[in-house]
Amino acid sequence: MSVINIDLLCSGNRRALAKAITLVESKLDSHRQQAQEVLQQVLPKTGKSIRIGISGIPGVGKSTFIEAFGLHLIEQGYKTAVLAVDPSSPVHGGSILGDKTRMEMLSRKDDAFIRPSPSDGALGGVAQKTRETMLLCEAAGYEVVIVETVGVGQSEYEVAAMVDFFLVLMIPNAGDELQGIKKGIIELADALVINKADGESINLAKQTQRHYQNAFHLLGSNTFWTPQVLTCSALRHDNIDAVWGMISNYKIDAINNDVFYQQRNKQNIDWMQKLIAEMLELKLKQNPEVVSALPQQKQQVASGQTTPYAAAKHIISML
Amino acid sequence: MSVINIDLLCSGNRRALAKAITLVESKLDSHRQQAQEVLQQVLPKTGKSIRIGISGIPGVGKSTFIEAFGLHLIEQGYKTAVLAVDPSSPVHGGSILGDKTRMEMLSRKDDAFIRPSPSDGALGGVAQKTRETMLLCEAAGYEVVIVETVGVGQSEYEVAAMVDFFLVLMIPNAGDELQGIKKGIIELADALVINKADGESINLAKQTQRHYQNAFHLLGSNTFWTPQVLTCSALRHDNIDAVWGMISNYKIDAINNDVFYQQRNKQNIDWMQKLIAEMLELKLKQNPEVVSALPQQKQQVASGQTTPYAAAKHIISML
Repeated sequence: MSVINIDLLCSGNRRALAKAITLVESKLDSHRQQAQEVLQQVLPKTGKSIRIGISGIPGVGKSTFIEAFGLHLIEQGYKTAVLAVDPSSPVHGGSILGDKTRMEMLSRKDDAFIRPSPSDGALGGVAQKTRETMLLCEAAGYEVVIVETVGVGQSEYEVAAMVDFFLVLMIPNAGDELQGIKKGIIELADALVINKADGESINLAKQTQRHYQNAFHLLGSNTFWTPQVLTCSALRHDNIDAVWGMISNYKIDAINNDVFYQQRNKQNIDWMQKLIAEMLELKLKQNPEVVSALPQQKQQVASGQTTPYAAAKHIISML
Repeated sequence: MSVINIDLLCSGNRRALAKAITLVESKLDSHRQQAQEVLQQVLPKTGKSIRIGISGIPGVGKSTFIEAFGLHLIEQGYKTAVLAVDPSSPVHGGSILGDKTRMEMLSRKDDAFIRPSPSDGALGGVAQKTRETMLLCEAAGYEVVIVETVGVGQSEYEVAAMVDFFLVLMIPNAGDELQGIKKGIIELADALVINKADGESINLAKQTQRHYQNAFHLLGSNTFWTPQVLTCSALRHDNIDAVWGMISNYKIDAINNDVFYQQRNKQNIDWMQKLIAEMLELKLKQNPEVVSALPQQKQQVASGQTTPYAAAKHIISML
């Protein structure tokens, strides 16, 4: 892999950006080293975008929403990047062999950059690569970075921990059926957006909106921001501007409340601590004595033959 | 400190139990060692209680509820222990100098054992000591162990991770005012119990019940169990039997669904992993080079001069 031209990358050259992302996604130690050097060099150019996480289970109209939202942002003059965080996520817009029907209009825009999920990674996993890709996109001048996740599993927590604003998409629903959404995700949301609020579903969408507004009210808020519940129709491009308006207002309020950059700093320091813990764990996993003893200790803890404390002490004594 | 008489402890002798708990709570390394030996010996006698976490903010009537609930359990023939997990929690029933007005009736019962919070501890903190105390109470024949927490801060997560059933107490509330309850706690609850459902508040309590039932419905459930919302009056001992009935049903259902012991095993293994991580972190904190470098690395990460990954690598390279 040839060396990345930093100036070209920072001027917004798509090829240079794509190459840098490929470097970041590589598992080779030498590439990893190069990637870190690239990141260190572009770091002063990063941080200027608004980072938006978008989650929602399949069937909620996520691709249609992100396409409509992205087109609206580009119309407003914002360069927009879309990254996917789930290895299983079907974002292929940036790949030649990808599904061209997905975000087809958006993927043809010069000001849009769509990148499918990285395959699984080493330390920090897919989240690490998505975080690094986000920085590269910012260095290349993207002003909005959307991080997409499928709304099942652990990745929502990881995405919520790397973005400024976390949005969960839902569909109109009488409240009698559940949306298969994972417990706890609602807690992460800065906003719910009820999509498919069109035709005969408009009233149901409004009702769903009221239900969730009430639920948010009951759950309470610890910050300056109470999660908002909006309705929209991505298909008809209805109320997409209101979603962007809300996020813009959030950013202004968060900056005025000294929360915006504080949250990013906290996210970075938390991430550093998480990586340190992972690296320590890796050291443990690379210790042959520990590797052979751990399954037995777990088994003894599970069967009540030893206490978690005694087992942990035993494992640590091997280092 | 004299050696603990294991047979006496397992026969239910209160003095032996109290002495063992004092040993578990000691910070002295030699006591810590002895405590682990005691725990290892009593381990086969543990695990037979149902472990219930009870949380609720001040003013919710927590002491009154636990007293009424404990008296009901004792009437039903169950030996009941009440442990508090917050260092700031005002449970003093087990202490000679304590507040005798709190759980006064319960503290006089032979079949009740009330223990105030341990002061802060080393590895695993107060949660570690409460977990160990829980095991000692089980060995001493207590069939219900109640772990009480004040409903603010991190301790709810710790308590939810050490009990079979986590109950959050609330008061009747029109839904217009929030109860100052921490966001996320509702998510931990296996049940909400609306206390003070008496006199003029009965209708409001029913209304609060419906609100939360609806919220739980919207939040969804990943398990066989949908959180229940009950009303009661601890003052009048109304519906306390229904709370116990619900928890008994939960246990039967959880056992039938192969979840009960599986959850305990998972809690123990998670706890072991957490202790291993803490012990590793302690090793890091005891490294003088790391201690002097860490604040600067954090500062550089927060100010965007370096990436979390590079900072973590730098710290780990010192070990």
